[in-house]
Amino acid sequence: MTAPFTLAPDLLWLDGRFQHGKAVRVDADGRIAAVVDDPAGGVRLPGRALLPGFVNAHSHAFQRLIRGRTQRRADGEGDTENFWSWREAMYSAALGLTPEDVFDVARWCFIEMMRTGITAVGEFHYLHHQADGRPYADPNELAHRVIAAAESVGLRIALLNVCYVTGGIGHDLGKDQRRFGAASPDAFLDRTRALREHVEASALATVGVAPHSIRAVPRDWLPELDGFAADHDLPLHIHVSEQPAEVDACVAEYGLRPVELLAEDGILGGRLTAIHATHLSDAEVEILGQSGASVCACPTTERDLGDGFLRGRDLLEAGVRVCLGTDSHTSLDFLEEMRLVEYNERLRRRARVVIAGEDGRGGLSVAPPLLEMATAAGARSLGLPAGDIAPGLHADLIAVDLEHPSLLGASADTLGAALTLSATPDVVRDVWVGGVPRLEDRRHPLEEEAAGAFARVATRL
Amino acid sequence: MTAPFTLAPDLLWLDGRFQHGKAVRVDADGRIAAVVDDPAGGVRLPGRALLPGFVNAHSHAFQRLIRGRTQRRADGEGDTENFWSWREAMYSAALGLTPEDVFDVARWCFIEMMRTGITAVGEFHYLHHQADGRPYADPNELAHRVIAAAESVGLRIALLNVCYVTGGIGHDLGKDQRRFGAASPDAFLDRTRALREHVEASALATVGVAPHSIRAVPRDWLPELDGFAADHDLPLHIHVSEQPAEVDACVAEYGLRPVELLAEDGILGGRLTAIHATHLSDAEVEILGQSGASVCACPTTERDLGDGFLRGRDLLEAGVRVCLGTDSHTSLDFLEEMRLVEYNERLRRRARVVIAGEDGRGGLSVAPPLLEMATAAGARSLGLPAGDIAPGLHADLIAVDLEHPSLLGASADTLGAALTLSATPDVVRDVWVGGVPRLEDRRHPLEEEAAGAFARVATRL
Repeated sequence: MTAPFTLAPDLLWLDGRFQHGKAVRVDADGRIAAVVDDPAGGVRLPGRALLPGFVNAHSHAFQRLIRGRTQRRADGEGDTENFWSWREAMYSAALGLTPEDVFDVARWCFIEMMRTGITAVGEFHYLHHQADGRPYADPNELAHRVIAAAESVGLRIALLNVCYVTGGIGHDLGKDQRRFGAASPDAFLDRTRALREHVEASALATVGVAPHSIRAVPRDWLPELDGFAADHDLPLHIHVSEQPAEVDACVAEYGLRPVELLAEDGILGGRLTAIHATHLSDAEVEILGQSGASVCACPTTERDLGDGFLRGRDLLEAGVRVCLGTDSHTSLDFLEEMRLVEYNERLRRRARVVIAGEDGRGGLSVAPPLLEMATAAGARSLGLPAGDIAPGLHADLIAVDLEHPSLLGASADTLGAALTLSATPDVVRDVWVGGVPRLEDRRHPLEEEAAGAFARVATRL
Repeated sequence: MTAPFTLAPDLLWLDGRFQHGKAVRVDADGRIAAVVDDPAGGVRLPGRALLPGFVNAHSHAFQRLIRGRTQRRADGEGDTENFWSWREAMYSAALGLTPEDVFDVARWCFIEMMRTGITAVGEFHYLHHQADGRPYADPNELAHRVIAAAESVGLRIALLNVCYVTGGIGHDLGKDQRRFGAASPDAFLDRTRALREHVEASALATVGVAPHSIRAVPRDWLPELDGFAADHDLPLHIHVSEQPAEVDACVAEYGLRPVELLAEDGILGGRLTAIHATHLSDAEVEILGQSGASVCACPTTERDLGDGFLRGRDLLEAGVRVCLGTDSHTSLDFLEEMRLVEYNERLRRRARVVIAGEDGRGGLSVAPPLLEMATAAGARSLGLPAGDIAPGLHADLIAVDLEHPSLLGASADTLGAALTLSATPDVVRDVWVGGVPRLEDRRHPLEEEAAGAFARVATRL
């Protein structure tokens, strides 16, 4: 099936609800041409609902390797583990990877993403150098491998090129962080420029700028990185306030909390996405809302790492656009990422239907805001013309099986809630990216080859 | 495939870890005969890990009908919804069901359970009477339908016959609770006796006693119900402290919190399972631990209803056996039930590997306690000789696909963690109950018929 074509599902997610009798016309260039009524001659998708593909705004693909490997503690090693001991295990995995491994692990991770309905990823890429810390002959070698992996799978990718300088505020990089470093803002921006040229002809890849965090980038580098992003209209991503210790260090050094610092230095604004933003003061929530910035929550990772609870409803009420990321890939179930934003609020507030938006039936329902986080908010964060079903946007689409056991009994009115709160991820049957079918009936053409290559890396490490 | 046979998987869950080179011999009576080494002539299960089936200790099968239907609020109806408004919607669904509907909804729900690896269910059954409140000609009509549904699917069932008397402490049943009531302890126990006779010849069904809760059963009925359970060695299940309002009402009326009351009246003990037990004082945690009672957590329901957080680690440290239930079936993913016990603790405590047990490699891992909750603890709660792989127990077994994308890269050492924290529920490929294959390659022979019948009920209501 090659575009142009018209996809005519039983139900289409449009204007915050599922609608019958609508179809999507896709142009030969892989963009959405129009939403049309009662099409004749379209490609019928019986028993399917069509939605915009999910946008995964924060990923470290290589961390898929350590799934299941950090869930124990050696006896006598204390009462629990924590984020920081997890990070050591993650660094250890990062040190062992060859360029071929980086490709193999990312390719598999991207296929697994597609199986849960993800059509675009923001890859927060900080693994730059050789295992001994020296740059590769092409300093973007590993970024190229990650991009090639996404292109081979057919996944849209925003390579968020990470600037990583210090091992903590004012501290040199640690020995096990030697593959991440940048020598100067110029050196980092030169690499970023070269990456932009590298993807110029790509139908799937774009580039963004990602100062790792307040703890890993000197404060006086930030304006230059932000200026570069502004000059080229690129997204700017930064980890913010994932752990209390990080907030404390920022306050101790600068007398400001991380979001306050970003505001004071003029970095906050519509192009910025604060990753995690878990430990925010009330004032920081307000500042974020006024700035037009996005927050990227990574709920399954944040629960795995014991980070703490997102202030989901507070952020939304303050006007922050909240998007979602799978981050460490401890699981790959984008429906679970969505529902945790609502469910963690229910547990904390002892209430139901906490995050809700107009459902087109005179009420408020959980599905519109959760699906908006998973689609349009992510696309905005990554600067992609995608994340919605509207003319001119990329035809990045997913088809959901209405006869799947977990959805059985849902009507057009209740499907949104059943999908976001109750369905298992294998409801996603088909995926198109840029109008090209990539996953058909849950099968990706590269699945076996990619699984074999990934398993070989996993066994070796 | 008919027993006797020997199942020889790649990995067997045995003594808290996955082991190579072990097989399970199943007798002609559907019980486990032995665990044997390096079998010849066994049924090879390549690419499979074999585990005891999961025991779902708390279910209201008919609530599967309202999945997705209570996730909105009418505009202007306040800031959020809550448990009590959800309950009204649930009652409304209960009022519309015919006996045939009860069978059809339960049958579908039980098939969906089996797809997530559940081999036995404790069905907390309180829907007893006709829609107008009068008993059926056979007062156990609806219980028979639920049991028949489980038997048709091949699921083991403990029918926990519910005694429901008041609509709140000292209040008559509400109008929309008219299908639940019991006129006297004798009337209730007569029905329970008849149910026991009904299941006498069943290979799959047993019976338990379930005073609904402190709020729904007069305090002076409890000793008689408990005495009956003790005389016949039956499990005793009761909802405890799901909502703060329920605790407050108990304190106001009796000057005791629910667990304190159960202790004072001599009801607490090894046969009792407290369902939910969310809002416990420190003293109640201790009392539960000393009593030998079980607690059944229902994490996906408790998050859906905004109940609050289980004190998981506190309970385990006090010596309480914690088992799991899917309760309202807002989702049916038993792996998610397991992982939420650990993950909610991580979020609250900002730590990792909070609930951990000896992993046979000199360390502590999340998998042994989470899988114990899902299997042996549930079987104990329901009084079933099941929930483990050991001679004499029911051959209730599940095979997990080691090549499933979500498990790719796991080794024997990390599989337990990957399964409990990271896998999607479709890793379960095959299910045996009582040595009989019930689900093969994720297909249940009744799936299409049962789905059609369920969908007809869902559409009508």
